[in-house]
Amino acid sequence: MQNRQIIIDTLPTGTLKTDHYRMMETDMPQPAEGEVLLRVILMSIDAANRSWMKGATYRTAVNAGDPMPTYAICEVVESHSSSLTKGEIVAAEATWSDYITAPARTCQKLPKVAQLSHLMSVYGIAGKTAFHGLISIGEPMPGETVLVSAAAGSVGGYVGQIAKAMGCRVVGIAGGSEKCKWVQEEFGFDACIDYRAPKLSKALAQACPDGVDIYFDNVGGKILESSLNFMNERGRVVCCGAISQYDTDDVMGPRNLPGIVVVKRLKMQGFIVMDFAHNDAKCLRAMKHWVANGQIKVAEDIVEGLENAPQALIGLLNGDNKGKRMVRVSLDPS
Amino acid sequence: MQNRQIIIDTLPTGTLKTDHYRMMETDMPQPAEGEVLLRVILMSIDAANRSWMKGATYRTAVNAGDPMPTYAICEVVESHSSSLTKGEIVAAEATWSDYITAPARTCQKLPKVAQLSHLMSVYGIAGKTAFHGLISIGEPMPGETVLVSAAAGSVGGYVGQIAKAMGCRVVGIAGGSEKCKWVQEEFGFDACIDYRAPKLSKALAQACPDGVDIYFDNVGGKILESSLNFMNERGRVVCCGAISQYDTDDVMGPRNLPGIVVVKRLKMQGFIVMDFAHNDAKCLRAMKHWVANGQIKVAEDIVEGLENAPQALIGLLNGDNKGKRMVRVSLDPS
Repeated sequence: MQNRQIIIDTLPTGTLKTDHYRMMETDMPQPAEGEVLLRVILMSIDAANRSWMKGATYRTAVNAGDPMPTYAICEVVESHSSSLTKGEIVAAEATWSDYITAPARTCQKLPKVAQLSHLMSVYGIAGKTAFHGLISIGEPMPGETVLVSAAAGSVGGYVGQIAKAMGCRVVGIAGGSEKCKWVQEEFGFDACIDYRAPKLSKALAQACPDGVDIYFDNVGGKILESSLNFMNERGRVVCCGAISQYDTDDVMGPRNLPGIVVVKRLKMQGFIVMDFAHNDAKCLRAMKHWVANGQIKVAEDIVEGLENAPQALIGLLNGDNKGKRMVRVSLDPS
Repeated sequence: MQNRQIIIDTLPTGTLKTDHYRMMETDMPQPAEGEVLLRVILMSIDAANRSWMKGATYRTAVNAGDPMPTYAICEVVESHSSSLTKGEIVAAEATWSDYITAPARTCQKLPKVAQLSHLMSVYGIAGKTAFHGLISIGEPMPGETVLVSAAAGSVGGYVGQIAKAMGCRVVGIAGGSEKCKWVQEEFGFDACIDYRAPKLSKALAQACPDGVDIYFDNVGGKILESSLNFMNERGRVVCCGAISQYDTDDVMGPRNLPGIVVVKRLKMQGFIVMDFAHNDAKCLRAMKHWVANGQIKVAEDIVEGLENAPQALIGLLNGDNKGKRMVRVSLDPS
């Protein structure tokens, strides 16, 4: 039996292209004692994947010659550990591959749900990132205005829907009028601004007549700079990502930082989803409640086939996706 | 009897110069019912004064034709209010003047201390800004590394001395080798870096071998950008001011924001001293304790004469001062 792996051929210096990757056929990996052989089912495609290619972050840098790392949902197909058995479904730090091996202790058993992809979207990395960032850093209160960028992306839609459920006014920022319309109709945002249209500041002023109490920032750059100007005193900026800065070497620092943070007594705080793992049970209970009563709609954007992973990531960096993007490498066991 | 006032003649567009001010002789102001006539004794000279000339901040903008606003310590010389009596010492929102009138309810009675200037330095705006920012936002723990810019300025020296008293390693950033030496010898900083010397990043790496847990930022701009690169995970950036950005129209946004805030899970938070007024009693108790046991030395930089206020502010923006700068307009009553 053969395995396929997608390798980083060269690290990108400017924009990521499919040429930066190459597909490699290898022998089937053999799990050592304490390890499991995993069949990759779904791979998470995240803007952060691109940032990993720019040097060490919260994880070690990835380099040319490495298989591309990813967070994935997998099935145990062979176990050399007493803690996992064949057929179990786990989350693992994987690579863009058909099969991988991993130490059993690093795999996280997943609960049974009606649809496996939900463990990556609403009940997984996207939903948890939205919930933890908004609730623990943003601390929303009813009547506040929440602004969220990349509103049609993996995380943004959940941020807005959670904020609506908490009684906030919600304004999105997305690319293109079609996406903006979708965000309002599908997720019930009060307004959504097309950042590609001219006069972003004027649009922000109109959509946020009472200013912004929480800005959930997925993009950084110029949109962050403009949004900061509309923050209310003691506003909170949830720093979740900086997608505008990852796929380029031409990075732009918001010129109103740090002055506006002082003057308006803002809090800007960064996080990654694992920082709030101690609150995951709370998160899942709340998300299930909101899904059950119709306050949260699930949005998924699934690309079929391992071979399409490079284009799936490149497209995400260009804002092609609507909802949580993932790549389906193989079928659910169910 | 005549009064003198310093008026903003024109608002600066680039660098502040003495020409932007003019001295005016006026009649003695007359307090109305509920007001007091105050003799200005000491005026606080702060970088924030310059930022007030750039538009609305946490206070309304100041404009050409306005007397220059300041925080001041004053003596009541005539009272039309039952709440204040002649001879009392108060803090007030004043202007660069010999005498002003103010509503009695806006004046804050000051405690008796051995030296009136201490109510502006160690027990006043400088010491309180250092204490509240470091303690409430920075949350220092023993063994942590605290980096502070404008270390020889009004606030920086107290930040470092408080951090030392809390068991931290303290590294300063100041302009020129003489000031750096003074910061180390006078305040006991473990190291102090001259930002005017080449290779700031290399100097930071050498002075902070364990990284930086708290960066107390008084300056913004390039020094903020460089300092952020040395922050440890979950570090705190206390945003106290951005003196490098006030006296210019050529502002520079740190290019590593917000990316590094996400990756390192940093908290950046702005404040002004009044935000923590509820903790002032705690602050004064601690500062008196540290002054009494020699852990905090008081540093004051007093410029004599109302007419020298413009140059005192311009000099502060150029980094001329060592310790808390103020202007003595008239003698203490004691």
